[in-house]
Amino acid sequence: MAQVDLALIHYPVLNKNKEIIGAAVTNLDIHDIARAGRTYGVGSFYIVTPYEDQQQLVQEIVSHWRSGYGATYNSDRKEALGGVHVCTDLQALYEQIAVDGKRPVVLATSAQSSECTMWTYSQVKERINQGERILVLFGTAWGLASEVMAEVDAVLPPISGGGDYNHLSVRSAVSIVLDRLLSVDRG
Amino acid sequence: MAQVDLALIHYPVLNKNKEIIGAAVTNLDIHDIARAGRTYGVGSFYIVTPYEDQQQLVQEIVSHWRSGYGATYNSDRKEALGGVHVCTDLQALYEQIAVDGKRPVVLATSAQSSECTMWTYSQVKERINQGERILVLFGTAWGLASEVMAEVDAVLPPISGGGDYNHLSVRSAVSIVLDRLLSVDRG
Repeated sequence: MAQVDLALIHYPVLNKNKEIIGAAVTNLDIHDIARAGRTYGVGSFYIVTPYEDQQQLVQEIVSHWRSGYGATYNSDRKEALGGVHVCTDLQALYEQIAVDGKRPVVLATSAQSSECTMWTYSQVKERINQGERILVLFGTAWGLASEVMAEVDAVLPPISGGGDYNHLSVRSAVSIVLDRLLSVDRG
Repeated sequence: MAQVDLALIHYPVLNKNKEIIGAAVTNLDIHDIARAGRTYGVGSFYIVTPYEDQQQLVQEIVSHWRSGYGATYNSDRKEALGGVHVCTDLQALYEQIAVDGKRPVVLATSAQSSECTMWTYSQVKERINQGERILVLFGTAWGLASEVMAEVDAVLPPISGGGDYNHLSVRSAVSIVLDRLLSVDRG
């Protein structure tokens, strides 16, 4: 049984000028990533934002689908959003999910090649299959700030479609990464 | 050089009660699928809807990013949306993209197993690598109506994450299908 969690980081991330910003929560990020996570057997999906109004917004969206009218209207969505949790910052998340004081293996994702330690998708898949606990971080806006990258255990390779265009939505990137790491049969 | 086009069908598709409906265009479908298409070298991305107001909406969104303020603000988005076209119905699309009266191989996608001819992702990838022209259809709402499925050459297998939950967003499904069919290195 795979033990993979996801976190979508809204601060600290980069804007198009590579400055550190806090990004707003996007409704469809929550839905699409929760649905993909549920499809591939992900445990928890953490929405990380320090802004209280944004945390409140996520709670309202999630409540609508978990216990409000949405839960009756679409029980599949209720099931997917059951794994969504809000968290203030990464440090709090690392502490929250530590077992015996030890955090899981934390992987960052990036559309750029980086100088950090890189593990291939096959290598990570093997670790997952051996029962290792993994947390994969995704950045909103123009990606994770370098201070986040500096604290992870390794970075997954950028997703390449063969060309030089590397501007997938985070919703697409999460879906592809999950398929590469967790699909049973891609043939 | 792969010759793959995509079409996102808004009519005829199914609602949750499996009745035929026309679905509304979703802004983020256009963006996410255009970006994924551009990443994986897709030729054209057709938005298929018979409703004139919806066709107009798509044209306005696309114009904003191709030649309006959006083109200056984000040239990567301009590039992605360059491949987006609007089409009234599938019959018109098949005629429009026919070469010497022959349409490309048309593949449907579905979250359900179907009784139609099924080709694996590897089989389709091999055809693509042999230079065959392929058009892949994706349904909005609860998926393509059976009258669409009946006219395609084959169906791709449902995307499975190992469990029984099969409610990916169409944005996620397109991204995963493109990665399976067109990625150079998934390791």
